[in-house]
Amino acid sequence: MSAFITSGSFSSQLLYRPEPFSKTLNCSKFVFRRPLTKPPLVTFPGRNSKEAGRCFFMTTTVPRKEGVTKENLEFDTKCFQKERVWLVDGYEYIVRGGRDVFKALPKAFQKVKQVGVIGWGSQGPAQAQNLRDTFESCGLPITVKVGLRSGSRSMQEARKAGFSEEKGTLGEMLDVIAESDLVLLLISDAATVENYEAIMKAMKPGATLGLSHGFLLGYLDSIGKKFRSDINVILVAPKGMGPSVRRLYIQGKQLNGAGINSSFAVEQDVDGRATDLAIGWAIAIGSPFTFQTTMRNEYRSDIFGERGILLGAVHGIVECLFRRYLWENVSEKQAFVNACESITGPISKKISKKGIRAVYDELHEDEKQVFARAYCASYLPAYDILIECYEDVESGNEIKSVLQACKRHQKIPMGKIDTTRMWQVGKQVRETRDEAKIPIVPFSAGVYIAAMMAQIDILMEKGHPVSEIVNESVIESVDSLNPYMHARGVSYMVDNCSTTARLGARKWAPRFDYNISQQAFPAIDNKEPLDMSKLDAFLSHPIHSAVLECAKLRPSVDISLSGTTSEDFARYWL
Amino acid sequence: MSAFITSGSFSSQLLYRPEPFSKTLNCSKFVFRRPLTKPPLVTFPGRNSKEAGRCFFMTTTVPRKEGVTKENLEFDTKCFQKERVWLVDGYEYIVRGGRDVFKALPKAFQKVKQVGVIGWGSQGPAQAQNLRDTFESCGLPITVKVGLRSGSRSMQEARKAGFSEEKGTLGEMLDVIAESDLVLLLISDAATVENYEAIMKAMKPGATLGLSHGFLLGYLDSIGKKFRSDINVILVAPKGMGPSVRRLYIQGKQLNGAGINSSFAVEQDVDGRATDLAIGWAIAIGSPFTFQTTMRNEYRSDIFGERGILLGAVHGIVECLFRRYLWENVSEKQAFVNACESITGPISKKISKKGIRAVYDELHEDEKQVFARAYCASYLPAYDILIECYEDVESGNEIKSVLQACKRHQKIPMGKIDTTRMWQVGKQVRETRDEAKIPIVPFSAGVYIAAMMAQIDILMEKGHPVSEIVNESVIESVDSLNPYMHARGVSYMVDNCSTTARLGARKWAPRFDYNISQQAFPAIDNKEPLDMSKLDAFLSHPIHSAVLECAKLRPSVDISLSGTTSEDFARYWL
Repeated sequence: MSAFITSGSFSSQLLYRPEPFSKTLNCSKFVFRRPLTKPPLVTFPGRNSKEAGRCFFMTTTVPRKEGVTKENLEFDTKCFQKERVWLVDGYEYIVRGGRDVFKALPKAFQKVKQVGVIGWGSQGPAQAQNLRDTFESCGLPITVKVGLRSGSRSMQEARKAGFSEEKGTLGEMLDVIAESDLVLLLISDAATVENYEAIMKAMKPGATLGLSHGFLLGYLDSIGKKFRSDINVILVAPKGMGPSVRRLYIQGKQLNGAGINSSFAVEQDVDGRATDLAIGWAIAIGSPFTFQTTMRNEYRSDIFGERGILLGAVHGIVECLFRRYLWENVSEKQAFVNACESITGPISKKISKKGIRAVYDELHEDEKQVFARAYCASYLPAYDILIECYEDVESGNEIKSVLQACKRHQKIPMGKIDTTRMWQVGKQVRETRDEAKIPIVPFSAGVYIAAMMAQIDILMEKGHPVSEIVNESVIESVDSLNPYMHARGVSYMVDNCSTTARLGARKWAPRFDYNISQQAFPAIDNKEPLDMSKLDAFLSHPIHSAVLECAKLRPSVDISLSGTTSEDFARYWL
Repeated sequence: MSAFITSGSFSSQLLYRPEPFSKTLNCSKFVFRRPLTKPPLVTFPGRNSKEAGRCFFMTTTVPRKEGVTKENLEFDTKCFQKERVWLVDGYEYIVRGGRDVFKALPKAFQKVKQVGVIGWGSQGPAQAQNLRDTFESCGLPITVKVGLRSGSRSMQEARKAGFSEEKGTLGEMLDVIAESDLVLLLISDAATVENYEAIMKAMKPGATLGLSHGFLLGYLDSIGKKFRSDINVILVAPKGMGPSVRRLYIQGKQLNGAGINSSFAVEQDVDGRATDLAIGWAIAIGSPFTFQTTMRNEYRSDIFGERGILLGAVHGIVECLFRRYLWENVSEKQAFVNACESITGPISKKISKKGIRAVYDELHEDEKQVFARAYCASYLPAYDILIECYEDVESGNEIKSVLQACKRHQKIPMGKIDTTRMWQVGKQVRETRDEAKIPIVPFSAGVYIAAMMAQIDILMEKGHPVSEIVNESVIESVDSLNPYMHARGVSYMVDNCSTTARLGARKWAPRFDYNISQQAFPAIDNKEPLDMSKLDAFLSHPIHSAVLECAKLRPSVDISLSGTTSEDFARYWL
């Protein structure tokens, strides 16, 4: 799920305020910092006022075990300047973009005469137009040609955006693939898998395959196959939906630094040019910051994240909280406010503005007790489902299951999940919403944040880069997904996302619901002894500093949700 | 999940009463019947009294597509007499057991000097003792030797049952395997997978591997491996838990025909003796009827069935019904009665006594309307989850997922699901239960039977033998599982079943809950037009006759649940 930092609308009120980078970001702060021999000290408010004090900016207590460790994640660039930033337990490397860096693009795109943009869904229109505009602005003689299936309804839309057969910038999918030096494959996951053999066959030897999501690699992993060995394979995953990638790019023409951040990865490099081409692609579509990952880490964290806290977990959690509050005999509307409005509204905003810990720190003492019990009881039940989900993604099960479901749903439609009683109540609540009156409900916060932290811990255990972890578990959630859910409801969001995300959310949400209802709630209600060390681990967790560090890498321009249309919702997902 | 016909306690009141076979079962009725050129006519009461009439004993409307079709399921036996029975759309073959057939065992077990029974869980004690007693009674000089891990706590229990090192009837697992001509591998699924390479290696060339569950084949399928090619591989799956296999066998010493039915399968036959050995094994442990299946069909229907109507589906259904009734403002206790007691009590009894259709046929006219709407709205949402589940089993996903979960739960315990509010209410309800006052709630019946019929249709689509379908979808449910659940609660049953079943029920129950809550209930409440042809398909479904036909193949002795202990619950599962 790609939707990083589409809404930074709270940043103007940040306590730990990240300065817009174009004005004040001080490179020396992280670029030239040496590896630390001892972990630095960071001051944190304590668990309560009496315990206020210092804790170590420690290495995570969860050892990194699998996947590509950060140590392996370094890259060489001949065209761009890389910078490094300390996150949790090591350096990660980034490349800064912006209009002033466009001058490096000719070298990065050397030998590329044509970029084929395949597909016209969410990312296709945005990336095709941004690349065309960028190349024009640099005077680069590279053709951007859109490739679609013959007779596709999208042909007309592409023509409206200025691509046409007459100009040689629009053509049949496989023809465009065969002609292009860089092929950006931006069709749906199911279509990618269905067509990949023909696509592979069509590509020129030595050409570069570009993906904005690692799903195809996940598919190949699951069937034990590999990419053609004579092509470059790279990934640029913009951390926002296509319309935002386009909208901010346009703003970036006036205000340097506007844009959507991206992660990039190099899966195959046959000519030594793949890294610079990937970074160049990211910068050319307007990414102010580009982070490194691997394609395997990308698809795992992405598919996992949308099943977890981004979509599936938050849905299951608000459903079981709603039931719980109803059983406590509050009104339906109040139950909805406590269960859902609180999380998608003020809890998300607090995390966005001040970090995860602030939600706890700013509670009253008695509320802290409620949060603590909810947190400690919910962490393991949430972890239990999340680790199952991660390992299903890792093993290829989840991808196989998505492809099987796509086949089935060609015959039997999936149906909507937005018409249940809870979400009808939600509509009524939103109609008369007074944002200022939505409380931070400590019980709801404890359950929700427990799932968020469990997701973070699993991604750390599995060796993901911290920038990716913060993105897929925190920033994308509170700055991007939850505001959309706050506007229309969680289940509406599920109904309108990509097939892969939608299937996953529908599959995993009920698992979170049941496990938390069956394990956490009875433990709390029966006053069972809880493992309160979970709270200490939460309070001293190194991710808190990393979240603040990553917040500094936000773009200089915010996107607001005002003016979004239903189409934006439908196009949210790649 | 193996638990066929453990409780036929309602048979004395059967409307379509199956006569105990030892007295009146008329072989000519089905043994010598010729293939029909036209489907026979069967009289059914119509959808309501006005529509009463006849419908065809038709071939299922769902074409059989995959798996082994019944046409391929025929076998040759040199030692036993096979009989055939017409079920839905073709003949299936059975072999009748009983004490009088023991005389054929010497020929079937020719060249077998030792049977190694590996494991002492549910089936191990029962099969080891039954085989030993049978061989003694025939004067067959075959040693039954129990093989366990060195130092296993079960050693002591095996000694209590008369197996010992001194007598040469108890030994270390791999030693026993290496010595035996027939190795019955009756350890848990996870242990089977963990040890299978050592077990394969230990076996003598030309020996026979016997399984009571096809899980190991499922595992091999999922990793693309095969059994050693120089051994026979056979399956006998008793359709009841181990303690019943033993208890009825003992009764069978007095009353011929008492016992637990089994299915059998031959996966590999290197010496032409595998079929007779499999049937001989089934008869020697006391099966009054032995049905044919394939090992692949067995593991698929078994793993699928326990995730479906046997355990997972019924759990999810009663959970969402309970919530629904609560929202209708009935009391908690009444909601439990309507949602759960009705299904595990009178609805199951009615199906057991009179078949599935009778539940509908015997409703009042207004109740029929309620049933019909619930049925038609729930069929597809239930089908949707069931087909996903079947295909996850078929593709190997589910088996991989079970093995991954077993590894995880070595570190993190699974926890109980029986402590939620609903099941606490259930306890109170059972304490003051008046069985006669539990109503057949037409809405609950409609939802439950929709899931049962969807499961039947999927198994027919996938080409399973009808005897297996009726077993895994109807008889095992209403005669065996649901009575246990009625005694202790659905979630208690889930907490106490085998790891494979328990993991599956916990995984799939919430999916049924959500899909029915999200799709069926709103469709009913919003008075959306429903596909009422689903009801016609139900009323004219060919499975109804097959259920009655299979009911005739019940053993002549009933097991009652009275006197069962907690240990029986824990040992329910293989």
